[in-house]
Amino acid sequence: MPVVTVDANSRRVLMQAWVNSEALEITVSGGSAVYWSRSRGKLWKKGEQSGNTQRIVDVYLDCDNDSLLYEVEQKGGIACHTGRESCFYQKYKDGKWLVNDPVLKDPSSIYDKQ
Amino acid sequence: MPVVTVDANSRRVLMQAWVNSEALEITVSGGSAVYWSRSRGKLWKKGEQSGNTQRIVDVYLDCDNDSLLYEVEQKGGIACHTGRESCFYQKYKDGKWLVNDPVLKDPSSIYDKQ
Repeated sequence: MPVVTVDANSRRVLMQAWVNSEALEITVSGGSAVYWSRSRGKLWKKGEQSGNTQRIVDVYLDCDNDSLLYEVEQKGGIACHTGRESCFYQKYKDGKWLVNDPVLKDPSSIYDKQ
Repeated sequence: MPVVTVDANSRRVLMQAWVNSEALEITVSGGSAVYWSRSRGKLWKKGEQSGNTQRIVDVYLDCDNDSLLYEVEQKGGIACHTGRESCFYQKYKDGKWLVNDPVLKDPSSIYDKQ
């Protein structure tokens, strides 16, 4: 099912991803956000490559029991693989999607550590 | 694709729903949130029954271009059909989902107007 992730401090929506029951179980037991990667077909611990892990503050379920919300503390203040705080950085204006947020950190410096 | 709806004032995540291209088009042109109801298989103008419409402040797209965010002003302060501000009112605690938010308005008084 879909999960929405919000930053507990800035209150911004950081990303929208997916979970299965196993991902949810590991998330609530381990205290760090885990998702289901649909493209890779496997569990994905957020930050395992970048170091930008998400400490779980609270987890919420919606009225239809088919959508989750992770409230997190985002390590490094960067949730997006582009080096931005939030994945929702494209803003609609007059028929176009404009980049609305600055890159806080060069993605190559985030992912080329190994 | 999934859409996350946040309240521009309270910053709370109100709900998670779905849109198709037609719903998005009507939303950005009309200025009021429209979704695709998967259960009913049709467009769904939020608030058409309850009166609790959502005025669009801004619309955002995520980095993968497969998830949307509606920033809205929620009329009546109630997004959930249970009469609560947000649909995400169940909070995880010790293996259980606990109701975390008050009912602001009796749902029967919201939906039995006709």
